[in-house]
Amino acid sequence: MTVSEPSETVTSSERAALDQLYTDFAAANLAPLWTQREGLMPNVPQPDACPGVWRWSVLYELAARSGELVPVGRGGERRAIALANPGLPGTAYATPTLWAAIQYLGPGEEAPSHRHSQSAFRFVIEGEGVWTNVDGDPVAMRRGDLLLTPGMRWHEHHNTTDKPMAWIDGLDIPFVRQLDAGFFEFGSETLSTRDTPSRARNERLWGHAGLLPVGAPTTKASPLMAYRWESTDAALTAQLELEDEGFPGVVEPGHAVVRYTNPATGGDALTTIRTEMHRLAAGCRTASIRVAGSAVWQVFAGGGEIELEGELHTLKTGDLFVVPSWAELSIATETGLDAFRFSDDPVFEHLGLDRVNRKEEA
Amino acid sequence: MTVSEPSETVTSSERAALDQLYTDFAAANLAPLWTQREGLMPNVPQPDACPGVWRWSVLYELAARSGELVPVGRGGERRAIALANPGLPGTAYATPTLWAAIQYLGPGEEAPSHRHSQSAFRFVIEGEGVWTNVDGDPVAMRRGDLLLTPGMRWHEHHNTTDKPMAWIDGLDIPFVRQLDAGFFEFGSETLSTRDTPSRARNERLWGHAGLLPVGAPTTKASPLMAYRWESTDAALTAQLELEDEGFPGVVEPGHAVVRYTNPATGGDALTTIRTEMHRLAAGCRTASIRVAGSAVWQVFAGGGEIELEGELHTLKTGDLFVVPSWAELSIATETGLDAFRFSDDPVFEHLGLDRVNRKEEA
Amino acid sequence: MTVSEPSETVTSSERAALDQLYTDFAAANLAPLWTQREGLMPNVPQPDACPGVWRWSVLYELAARSGELVPVGRGGERRAIALANPGLPGTAYATPTLWAAIQYLGPGEEAPSHRHSQSAFRFVIEGEGVWTNVDGDPVAMRRGDLLLTPGMRWHEHHNTTDKPMAWIDGLDIPFVRQLDAGFFEFGSETLSTRDTPSRARNERLWGHAGLLPVGAPTTKASPLMAYRWESTDAALTAQLELEDEGFPGVVEPGHAVVRYTNPATGGDALTTIRTEMHRLAAGCRTASIRVAGSAVWQVFAGGGEIELEGELHTLKTGDLFVVPSWAELSIATETGLDAFRFSDDPVFEHLGLDRVNRKEEA
Amino acid sequence: MTVSEPSETVTSSERAALDQLYTDFAAANLAPLWTQREGLMPNVPQPDACPGVWRWSVLYELAARSGELVPVGRGGERRAIALANPGLPGTAYATPTLWAAIQYLGPGEEAPSHRHSQSAFRFVIEGEGVWTNVDGDPVAMRRGDLLLTPGMRWHEHHNTTDKPMAWIDGLDIPFVRQLDAGFFEFGSETLSTRDTPSRARNERLWGHAGLLPVGAPTTKASPLMAYRWESTDAALTAQLELEDEGFPGVVEPGHAVVRYTNPATGGDALTTIRTEMHRLAAGCRTASIRVAGSAVWQVFAGGGEIELEGELHTLKTGDLFVVPSWAELSIATETGLDAFRFSDDPVFEHLGLDRVNRKEEA
Repeated sequence: MTVSEPSETVTSSERAALDQLYTDFAAANLAPLWTQREGLMPNVPQPDACPGVWRWSVLYELAARSGELVPVGRGGERRAIALANPGLPGTAYATPTLWAAIQYLGPGEEAPSHRHSQSAFRFVIEGEGVWTNVDGDPVAMRRGDLLLTPGMRWHEHHNTTDKPMAWIDGLDIPFVRQLDAGFFEFGSETLSTRDTPSRARNERLWGHAGLLPVGAPTTKASPLMAYRWESTDAALTAQLELEDEGFPGVVEPGHAVVRYTNPATGGDALTTIRTEMHRLAAGCRTASIRVAGSAVWQVFAGGGEIELEGELHTLKTGDLFVVPSWAELSIATETGLDAFRFSDDPVFEHLGLDRVNRKEEA
Repeated sequence: MTVSEPSETVTSSERAALDQLYTDFAAANLAPLWTQREGLMPNVPQPDACPGVWRWSVLYELAARSGELVPVGRGGERRAIALANPGLPGTAYATPTLWAAIQYLGPGEEAPSHRHSQSAFRFVIEGEGVWTNVDGDPVAMRRGDLLLTPGMRWHEHHNTTDKPMAWIDGLDIPFVRQLDAGFFEFGSETLSTRDTPSRARNERLWGHAGLLPVGAPTTKASPLMAYRWESTDAALTAQLELEDEGFPGVVEPGHAVVRYTNPATGGDALTTIRTEMHRLAAGCRTASIRVAGSAVWQVFAGGGEIELEGELHTLKTGDLFVVPSWAELSIATETGLDAFRFSDDPVFEHLGLDRVNRKEEA
Repeated sequence: MTVSEPSETVTSSERAALDQLYTDFAAANLAPLWTQREGLMPNVPQPDACPGVWRWSVLYELAARSGELVPVGRGGERRAIALANPGLPGTAYATPTLWAAIQYLGPGEEAPSHRHSQSAFRFVIEGEGVWTNVDGDPVAMRRGDLLLTPGMRWHEHHNTTDKPMAWIDGLDIPFVRQLDAGFFEFGSETLSTRDTPSRARNERLWGHAGLLPVGAPTTKASPLMAYRWESTDAALTAQLELEDEGFPGVVEPGHAVVRYTNPATGGDALTTIRTEMHRLAAGCRTASIRVAGSAVWQVFAGGGEIELEGELHTLKTGDLFVVPSWAELSIATETGLDAFRFSDDPVFEHLGLDRVNRKEEA
Repeated sequence: MTVSEPSETVTSSERAALDQLYTDFAAANLAPLWTQREGLMPNVPQPDACPGVWRWSVLYELAARSGELVPVGRGGERRAIALANPGLPGTAYATPTLWAAIQYLGPGEEAPSHRHSQSAFRFVIEGEGVWTNVDGDPVAMRRGDLLLTPGMRWHEHHNTTDKPMAWIDGLDIPFVRQLDAGFFEFGSETLSTRDTPSRARNERLWGHAGLLPVGAPTTKASPLMAYRWESTDAALTAQLELEDEGFPGVVEPGHAVVRYTNPATGGDALTTIRTEMHRLAAGCRTASIRVAGSAVWQVFAGGGEIELEGELHTLKTGDLFVVPSWAELSIATETGLDAFRFSDDPVFEHLGLDRVNRKEEA
């Protein structure tokens, strides 16, 4: 006995009654579960979002052309070009929860101040010379750095050099849009500060391992808003060295991972987005895993090969790839690989929806 | 200087270059932020979902006709008819995160066992005689009761009487679908038990205020899966009586609220859905408030009037209404009103996205 | 090579130098670790407190005589007679952290209002007719009830009957004294209320399983201050019935336990004291266990036998026994036994000092 | 009407009855509250422990003499000489909860391996060349460093130089002794490692601000066991510089404080002991405060003056002072002062017993 559709032997009067029922459903703004349960509640996640690779060379070239043609300023606010997942047509979403874009700021350009509920970060693949002022605190942006803009903090960027600079932006725009959780405000037309210190005030206050400033308030998102490459590199190097010396630390052989966290709580640096840096030693091949939740990766240094939902892709520095929920992924490298990953894991973990499947070797 | 669209004085060759840029964006699966920032990141939430009222009389009549025409069983699984928000066309969603449906089970009918990541509850507006077996624990369903099915717990329903019974189902189907977080499994074709105790085992173990069974494990979602009307009613009655006696307890004058919680943690009964019962004393008019996040209400007893985004609606027992994010709502009643509310508040609170605006009186 | 004491072959001049060293230590208010490490840091806890049994018949008789001879009121505040552990001479402590006393209030007597940092509860072994007003909220005391007075809440007791009433008080007096954490204030000379409702306001607001009043503040200690015997009894009965039916719930065969908790958090009802009711089915013998931390038990109903640090004691209703840290305990009963237990477990658990050893059967 | 002692007009037969009652109390191991309430439950903390100053010059000289006369090794375990508070006679306790000692290790000496429930740290006022192996991980000890030994971790020390080295040890020995919570085990007679790296493995894994190793387990006490002076100094310097620049960070004018924390949780580095470094700018005078809970301070650099319970003391580098619960303290310095502080604050905060009083200026 099934509910979905009455049996083949339905009479024509039954058929008519059923048709009328569906018509009446529609008129009353109602919809039956039985005709759509499978699509709504698949046995395992069936993302509309596609797995895929976006090439840095293509992104950068288009961003540079935008730099020529499209001025930055109040209105569009930012010269950011987003990964538009072909499985999510009509959107500019990388995944159903994550936004990933290249942002490009020409010599001397300024992106004006605004703030919003959406959590944001910038990760710098190359270049330097832009400062992002977060609540008036000037944060230098340099290669390998992760810079945060937690929800509702004022931020503006300005390029102090005579060269363009590009980086990736990650936000929870799709997630916040879906929840209708977003608030947005424009700030001042003029920069809050033109100071260009090498370390921001938040770094000076919070950037000391294990040492918290007793006089500063604790916040849900990280009060530390810059994670410098020197530290990240040292932390990854240490994990692999410890492995070589026979001690624990890596997540699997040859695979080091650090998570960017709020030093005052140990929780994720942003409330809705997990950020991590992965390093694979030369010759490493990760296990194939599926994770409930979606992620975007960018190769930061070196190169390698991924197998993503059964398809092989060769990756160079700067290339991005999108991993929809439950897509199977393994990464391999002959010469070594650093890759930045961001994901919606915190949402899944807070709500008890997290699940991982690690494929056992044959 | 704005980014969105170059100025009017663009030359035709610039125009051509720009057209080519947009074409190249599309070919590379990219999309610029500057043409869509406003839609993606509005100043305040601009939900697609519409506020609206669904009448119980209409729902019930259509559910009853479905009972005649559409068998229940393996396949469609459940004879549930969902509120399909006209602002979210092509879906069966009440809001972007919440599913709300009437479920109808005819005399002697059985809805077979399954389980899924989605959190679910049933709230009973009238009738009795159905038992829902949750992980094999038979839970009676009676008027005014809230019954839970937390994520990944097996559940099946059967009507032990010769009368139909209907209730509302609430789930986080849209939210879980958006996250691609859902797993689903079919269970046995035959009922795990035909026992019909008045109290389930989980109630006997966990249903004693402030008393926790030391030998039972703590879980993120509530281990207590039935909240009986007698208790809910007594709790609301007490709040209003205390107000009359001059003591605190109500949320505002004449307005009592209880939240259904996990007795082992005090957290929301379900990880993704908040559930509450509200009672307005005769003559009460609530403040007008806007909440970030969406909710569905059902009048359980009495009647009244709501002002929802500036529109007045008169409500009778059983009627449902949908409150999209940031929609302004106030409720008034001359003769008293009990209303059940469910919402996505836990998602907002866990992630630091919660916000409330209470309109001050003139 | 040891540090504790130099070898036997020490010369007399060395001996003199050492003597002078110890003299100089003392003069400078210093003390060496090496002469006392063993006492300070034993291999397993070596409590000074003795295990022991206090008979209810003896306590009650002495309390009644005190009722004749010693008036209650401002000054001594309470007619409470405490278990004075012979291993802790010069104190009135049951254990190094816990105070346990019988309190006796004659017909019509009043114990005046005060408040203090110390957490307190009353557990009623027999009788009724006293109300304890907690922050002005009159709480009835009846047989089997647990009544709380969390830290810094005003409280006063009055006997509304023409019969005396006695109960046990439990407090963290020794612990708070050791920490020098205690603050104490006298309240009004006259009762805040003479109302004698059967249910206190806090019970009406918080005493509904799984239902929290949204309008009331959450507190670290329980806002519910009365746990009635009817509920406790029902919860224990259910656990043993479920065991008989083949379902989980008991902590070990024949042994049901409920913990009194803060309904808003699931944590212990008091921040420093754990409170529990245990029920042993007829014929039950518990495992022998050692727990880091001390406890006091009182037999509430039935009788049985304990083996406490190798010594057997037969217990009747009302008898109390003291279990110092790491003392081995098992309880047996032929006819069934209910026993109330309180302990310093929350202190150990919060600070990561908890440890349990369960003796395996031969 | 008072309970403490019957009135003066008591008859001789009443007096005799009362004497008999007290005799019977004693025989039954009972003690009345009314004769001792005031001592047990004072209006504000009345510590037995005295405030006081211990001079580093005295400690060091006696430690050096001990180095000549008392060998270190299995048995006494450690050449540690503890502050013995004259208000706590017969003990070697600095306060009712804290142990503070100077430990002295001669050239080439080894303190053998043991582990215990007690949490411990070492803070180095001068010198270097000792390594403490914690669970086999060699941790260098240098001036200004804080080194942890959380509960139940194996530890042993060895001096690799031809000079003696001294430092202070802080433990929760009195607190754990009072709770009877302590377990102790001897380890191997021989060192687990003679490696002398400048950074321990735990530092390499956990010592990167805001970056957590995903492959390493989270623990209640800090997994980072060395906090180097360079970092501490930089963090304090930054707070005072930010103050000069007009930004927040210090706890009061001229007063910078960092807390040593578990980088995986933000909680105190040790579960039972808070550890902090304070820096007072030249000319700073702190507010006078009283804190519920006791603390020990050591001047690390510079000098100044304290007013402690109304008494003035001039302090030089290395001097220690003890602040019992609720003792009033202010610190002043003309030339600048760095001071290390440890306290039992985490116990108070976890259990809701924390309280602070800040004296308002006249």
